[in-house]
Parts: sequence; C-alpha cells; structure tokens
Amino acid sequence: MSLVVQKYGGSSLADAESIKRVARRIVDTKKAGNDVVVVVSAMGDTTDELLDLAAEVSPAPPSREMDMLLTAGERMSMALVSMAISNLGHSARSYTGSQAGVITDAQHGKARIIDVTPGRITEAIGEGHIVIVAGFQGVSQATNEITTLGRGGSDTTAVALAAGIKADVCEIYTDVDGIFTADPRIVPTAHKIDRITNEEMQELAASGAKVLMLRCVEYARRFDLPIHVRSSFSHHEGTWVVNQKEGDSVEDPIIAGVAHDRSEGKITIVGIPDSPGRAAAVFKAIAGVGINVDMIVQNVSAGTEKKTDISFTVPKEDAGRGVEVLKAMQDELGFEQLQYDDQVGKLSLVGSGMRSNPGVSATLFQSLADAGINIEMISTSEIRVSVVTSDDELDEAVRVVHSAFGLDADGEAVVYGGTGR
Amino acid sequence: MSLVVQKYGGSSLADAESIKRVARRIVDTKKAGNDVVVVVSAMGDTTDELLDLAAEVSPAPPSREMDMLLTAGERMSMALVSMAISNLGHSARSYTGSQAGVITDAQHGKARIIDVTPGRITEAIGEGHIVIVAGFQGVSQATNEITTLGRGGSDTTAVALAAGIKADVCEIYTDVDGIFTADPRIVPTAHKIDRITNEEMQELAASGAKVLMLRCVEYARRFDLPIHVRSSFSHHEGTWVVNQKEGDSVEDPIIAGVAHDRSEGKITIVGIPDSPGRAAAVFKAIAGVGINVDMIVQNVSAGTEKKTDISFTVPKEDAGRGVEVLKAMQDELGFEQLQYDDQVGKLSLVGSGMRSNPGVSATLFQSLADAGINIEMISTSEIRVSVVTSDDELDEAVRVVHSAFGLDADGEAVVYGGTGR
Repeated sequence: MSLVVQKYGGSSLADAESIKRVARRIVDTKKAGNDVVVVVSAMGDTTDELLDLAAEVSPAPPSREMDMLLTAGERMSMALVSMAISNLGHSARSYTGSQAGVITDAQHGKARIIDVTPGRITEAIGEGHIVIVAGFQGVSQATNEITTLGRGGSDTTAVALAAGIKADVCEIYTDVDGIFTADPRIVPTAHKIDRITNEEMQELAASGAKVLMLRCVEYARRFDLPIHVRSSFSHHEGTWVVNQKEGDSVEDPIIAGVAHDRSEGKITIVGIPDSPGRAAAVFKAIAGVGINVDMIVQNVSAGTEKKTDISFTVPKEDAGRGVEVLKAMQDELGFEQLQYDDQVGKLSLVGSGMRSNPGVSATLFQSLADAGINIEMISTSEIRVSVVTSDDELDEAVRVVHSAFGLDADGEAVVYGGTGR
Repeated sequence: MSLVVQKYGGSSLADAESIKRVARRIVDTKKAGNDVVVVVSAMGDTTDELLDLAAEVSPAPPSREMDMLLTAGERMSMALVSMAISNLGHSARSYTGSQAGVITDAQHGKARIIDVTPGRITEAIGEGHIVIVAGFQGVSQATNEITTLGRGGSDTTAVALAAGIKADVCEIYTDVDGIFTADPRIVPTAHKIDRITNEEMQELAASGAKVLMLRCVEYARRFDLPIHVRSSFSHHEGTWVVNQKEGDSVEDPIIAGVAHDRSEGKITIVGIPDSPGRAAAVFKAIAGVGINVDMIVQNVSAGTEKKTDISFTVPKEDAGRGVEVLKAMQDELGFEQLQYDDQVGKLSLVGSGMRSNPGVSATLFQSLADAGINIEMISTSEIRVSVVTSDDELDEAVRVVHSAFGLDADGEAVVYGGTGR
C-alpha cells in the first residue's frame, strides 16, 4: 500500500462531468489499495471570473482581500470533488489550505510555504477517508491571515503536502501527457520525456517550460520526492521527475530538452563609461525597484573613450519601471542612450550530460548559424545554455536546435555512455 | 459615536454595481462617526448556482461538503464589499464566520450559534477598520468543522455578532421598506410598521412573515438588542423591532399585523376511537419521524361509537412521511380513514394588545363569517389568533381581517389607551 498525492489542475476540473471523471480516477487509485490525498485547483475559468468581478468593484483591490476572494475558487472545487467521490460510495473529506496546515509567510498573492502541519490530514487518512485539499492557498504564520501562493501554487501545495505526509509519490495531473523535449505546438517532432532529473526540470521550468512551476520542483528536489507528471485524460505513463542518484544516468541523453520564453524584454544602456562601479550602480537601481534581471551582457570597450554598452533582460511587465528608473539616473551614470526591445525571445538547452560533454555550446551555436539565426545574447549555467534571438526567429531556432541534438521523435537521441557523475 | 452592525442580503448584493452602492452606504455610516461591522450574504443567485453544481455531481451530497461549498458564496461577497470600500478610500477587512468567532453546534446545514468569540473583530474595529463578516456560517465547537446556519442564517449572524460585540443597533437591510402590517402583494393597503415589539415580531415570523427569521428575533429579544429593518434602496426609516419595556405601548395599536402561511398541509385521522392514549400515540409516532406539528384540532365525539376525528397541520414537505407512518399504524390505532389536504392556508393575527382586549377573536371570526369564509381550524396564543382556511380563500381572508382591524393605510388604526400591561 502506498500513500499517493494527486494534483488536478483547473483544466481537469472544467465542469461537473470533468469532476465526476476525476472522482472515478481517484476512487480507482483508492481501490487499488492506496491511501490518497488529492490537491485541487479552482475549476476551469473560476479564477478569471473572480478576477473580473474584483476589477469591476475596484481597480486596485487590496491583496489581502484578493486572497480572500480567490481562495473561494478551490473551496468550491474541493467540495464538489469530495461530493462526487461520496457519490461513488467512498468517504471523502475536503480541507482548506489553512485546515490542511499549509503555513506560509505573509506575502499576499505570492506567499511562500514555510511549513506544513498536516495533523488533520494524517488523522483523516488514518480514519480511511480520501482527503481533498485546496491548492494554491495557505495561512500566514505571522498574521494568521489567508494567503495565496501565486501562479502554479497548487503544484507547490501538492509537493509540499506530499513531503509533509511522507507520501511515496506526487502525481501532477495536467492536460498533456508529460514533459516534452520542446513545446509540441512549435516542434511537432517533440516527444515525451520518460524520466528527467529534478535539476534539469528546475532549469527547464526557470527557462520558460510551463508544465511544472519552478518552486514546486525545488521543493521536490529538497525533499527527494518523486513527481509523476501525467495526463488526466489518459492512463499513459507520464514523465517521472526524480533526483539524480550516484551511478544513475548511464545511457541518458546528453540533452533533456529545449525550452523557450517570450516573457522577457531587453534593455540596452548605450555608451556608458567603462569605469569601476558603473555596472554595480545600474543593477543596484534595478534591484531597488524589485526587478529580477535574467541575462546580462557587457560589450568590450572600444575606442579611446573607454565607453561600453550593457544589455540585460527583464520581465516585460517590469521593463517600463526599469527604463524609468535608469532614465532618471542618466546624468549620474553618464550613458548616452537607453534602448528597449520587446521583440526578443530566449531559447534554453538543458541537460545534465553537458557537464561531461564540452562540445554542446559549439554544436548549438553552429546549428543556429547554419540556419542564419543571429544570437543577441548568451548565458550558461552548469547544465544549461541560453541564447536570446529576435522574437520572429525563435520558433525556427527551437526546431533547429531540437533537431541538431537528435531530440526529434523519429531521430536518434544523442546519448553518452560515460560514468555519469 | 455608536457601534453599528449592518446586514445586507443577497438581493442588495446582486452584482458589482449593487456592491458599490452598498459600499457607499457603509462608508457614509462610518463617516457619520460610527464604528461599523457589516454582515453579508452571498451575492444574488450564487447560492442557487452552487446548489445546482452540487446536484450535478451528486444527488445526495454529504452535508459537511455542502457547507464547505456554500460558504464560498459569502466569502466572495465579503471580499468584494471590502474591496469596494477600500476603493472609496476607507480601510476594510473581511472575516469568515470562523475567523469572526461564530461558534456553532455540529449540525451541518442547520447549525445553531452557541457562542460568539469576536476577538479578531473587536481588534480590527479598534484599529479603525470597517469589518465585513460572512453571514450564514460558523465553525462547530465539537468538531472544528465549517457549518452553515440554514435559511435566513445571515440575519442571525448579524444579531448574534451585534450582541457579542455589544453593538448599539443591528440594521437589517433588505429590498422592502420594513415590516408591513400584511404582505403588500396581497393587501395593497398594508402599511409599514414603525415600531413593533420583539414578542410580536416573533409571533409574526413564526406565522409566516418572511422579512425576519424567527431565530434572529429570538436572539435579539434575549440580548435586548434593537433591530432596525430597512431598505438598502432608500434612506427611509424602516421598522424598529424592540423589547417592550414597562410603561411602553400607550396608544400602540392592538394589532401589529396579519401574517399568512401556505407552507403547511392538513392531515385528518377520521374515525379514531375516543379512548385515552390514542392522541398521544399519534403524535408520538409523528414526532418519532422528526416532524413538527403546528395546529391540532380534535372534534367532540359523536354517536354511541365513541369515535372522533383528529386534524393537524405539518410542513408540506414532511406530510408524505407523516401519512406513511400513520398508515402503517392503522390497525394499532384503529382509525377508519386518513385524509391529507394541501389546499389550505393559515392566517395569523398578532398583537400584544390582545392581552387587554378580549374581543379580538370575536371580531376576527365575525369578519370572516361576513365575507363567507369558512374556518377549518383555530389556535391561539397569548398575543396571536391563527385560523386555517382553504387555500383559495386565504388572500381574501387576509384582506378582510386587515381591514376589520383598521390596519388599512387610509383607515383608522384601532388603538387602545390603557396602561399597557
């Protein structure tokens, strides 16, 4: 007998019929001899409808009240899933995030889970109930107020709860068959990944892959909890996201997948004196208004004037604020011009095999060059290479790179037979 | 400076526009120098929509989960009202029933408030916030589960909370101008009552008047809390529901109003032996299946056989169960026949002046006789006379009685100049 945590997202809970279908799947898991805890998101469009209502009464609602409003969404879906299970003759109990012991910090709208005290949940499991828990929400330790975790928060709830009750696996149900080597809408030959390391998944999620949110993968990695990402519309095996163990990975492909991201824009500071402390002043100012910088490139100084250009990428929704704060500092920083380009995209190649295969970057750059695609910026981590291209060349870039590394479903994946690490 | 509790029902919170209108009224009350606590119901049709959803996933949902589902309704409206107030530049905080300290027993769907521990509410008032509380819901002391109070529960929340925080007044906002001497849809000459005693209001509510629920009036009476029932669509004074004090009521009308009720049916047991213990056996059986009996009439025995008929009224939704349990006892009870009539209605005349005016019943019966309306059953309390008529004569009966006691708006109310009681 296993203890299984399952998470169903809004697209799996679109209407009464979907809820009944999900209930049958949960009951099947229970009947197979497992204890089951289910984390649910709000039904289909509920969250958007609630956001619309809020916008109608106030252009800038307080975040505390927004959390109060939005948490009604999971409350409805968890009660309905519980009812549907009862109707199949099994006993189910639903619990809010607060009741389930999801303890967070006090940042409304983007709270972080700081503890899980699942006393009521383990008690209910012990009594034989199927337990349904509202995702995306918790209660703050400091203020005792209801909080929400922000986008993708239900995945994090599921993984944190699974860790808290020492579940054997956390199954994340979604509307696709698992994690793919690239977005299938862009790369038709992309294929489902059977097994990926947490480390790789973290890099993919951070690079724009949308199936799993970064924080949830971080949590799973920390608690060494296997995640099984799979479709609620089929019974196929999905993708297992696991921690890499000593001796694993023999014959694993070098590259796990290709992610892409259109959410960032590029700010370029033209003609800034190349003297110590200038770059520090720039990024201190940007951080000062709460903006996370992703990639940074500084050109080599040219000419006798000792001036240089600095380019960096920021989330598009923050770019306006970033440009504003820098413009106000033009005299102080002494730059000539400020440029903002929102027509860019980022491609990221992720794979733990990069560590032992130094030729990856060269292959990547060559494949893009062969396709006539210009690289505007480059950044790398131990298991990732990212490049920024123009927006309109990004899709082609993803296809070219996916193919160059043998990831196409009908192609031959590049594998390495090393000792792993 | 007063401490005012206001309660707004679903019809006052139908959509975003209504919510903004209610917010303006709340802010006006605050700006007039009062501390304000607001109790809200779910918006317009929310509860019905949630009930529909529940019915789609399960024909008989567990009451615990139903409470979980329905409490989402007030959660949404309270957050939206709070946001609308913030948008007017005032600080508001919303609290669920559980957070507001509304402690109930564990009967899901029809819980009773057993205590109010409003620590968070008084603290928020002290900090200068306008406080919004979800009506209709609480948390059970014994099981720590979320409960709902049943129909009209938000009024009870408002009164209980007002008593708990020692408010000066509880204003119940509705879509009519107050309590009327009869239902204006039936009696066009009915007029708004300016002031009515709690005792009279209790009898009217128990007799079918729908504006205030019985339990809420009981609560207000127990804690000597004045209720002001008024319209959220106008600024007119409404009806004050107050405890009668020694020396009050000089020049008050004898009759407060006429209520009517079509929710009950009449069961008649024909030809039951008129021997000791038979009636006890009948009503023991009826009580045994959880049915509340309202009026009971036993005819005098006729003939030598010593047989009699017993008629009584029960809620229509319980009548089937009542008939069933009696039919199963036909041999034991020895009656000849069982009749059920759902085409009946009840008229109730209520007024504390009845105590010192013995002619009230006679005037009532005479006025009905003059109009050719047959009385099928009669029951009385100290300040109420109720009669059962056929359903199709009930409206006319209400009009005739309303007029006979001078309650018509253009008529002269019957007043008494006695010493009260």
